[in-house]
Amino acid sequence: MIFIMNERMAIQDYYSDPMAHCYGCGRLNEVGLKFKSYWDGKESHASFKPRAYHTAFPGFVYGGLIASLIDCHGTGTAAAAAYYAEERDMGTEPELRFVTASIQVSYLKPTPIDTTLELRGKVKEIKGKKVTVEVELSANNELCARGEVIAIKIPDTMKITI
Amino acid sequence: MIFIMNERMAIQDYYSDPMAHCYGCGRLNEVGLKFKSYWDGKESHASFKPRAYHTAFPGFVYGGLIASLIDCHGTGTAAAAAYYAEERDMGTEPELRFVTASIQVSYLKPTPIDTTLELRGKVKEIKGKKVTVEVELSANNELCARGEVIAIKIPDTMKITI
Repeated sequence: MIFIMNERMAIQDYYSDPMAHCYGCGRLNEVGLKFKSYWDGKESHASFKPRAYHTAFPGFVYGGLIASLIDCHGTGTAAAAAYYAEERDMGTEPELRFVTASIQVSYLKPTPIDTTLELRGKVKEIKGKKVTVEVELSANNELCARGEVIAIKIPDTMKITI
Repeated sequence: MIFIMNERMAIQDYYSDPMAHCYGCGRLNEVGLKFKSYWDGKESHASFKPRAYHTAFPGFVYGGLIASLIDCHGTGTAAAAAYYAEERDMGTEPELRFVTASIQVSYLKPTPIDTTLELRGKVKEIKGKKVTVEVELSANNELCARGEVIAIKIPDTMKITI
């Protein structure tokens, strides 16, 4: 299978400019988190160091950040997997970009704030415009949260209006 | 039923200081969102105006913020409902404070960023230490997202370590 993706480039670096304003993962959102995901042809990976103020309680990350990272990682993984399934290089037209239809996150244990969080995504199913992605979030090699994102390909008609 | 809660005080204003550092809803988190929920004895309500940079795409709110608001509103509602069920005033000891065990959010339509978001929470079930809360998030009187939060009462032993 031909699949060219520079492994040093994040999935989100391939998003077109109008699609790159997400507070979580948009490279053009000046104050956003600039979260980045990487695709190895089979799974997706990401790392994120929480800021000191991303607290739930002192010492632990608030759940909203964890949901945000899983969300961005899920839609990014969906995009990479969709290009891969079509045997197309990321960044080629027409752009394959996904939004979240639903997210579910189980918080398995308190997530420490003073370390780098590691995310891993796996595609559970690709069915038409829908990609289901399972995401695990770990800290210090301990699984802290598990999520599932149902991502839907943005229709071309919607992209025109953005 | 005796239940004294100053309606001008938010649920989160009753959290004890060690419990008031959440980036989403902690009054002591200096850079946080300071999201506030109100309980009317039956349901919970909240409003939040997204910042201009909380974008998914230009003009629309990113899903991570929506999940964060539903999360904080869910745990806040759980606390208020738990005090109410025990016929106790909020703020009395021992403190009833909840963390999120799981969250599910369905994004029903793109949420506009240039308006105030309105949240409403209803308790679906109280069972032991577990409170399940359903949350609806609307903008311009249109339902944009629906969520369910399973909140778990923090054990006293954990509170001591915070």
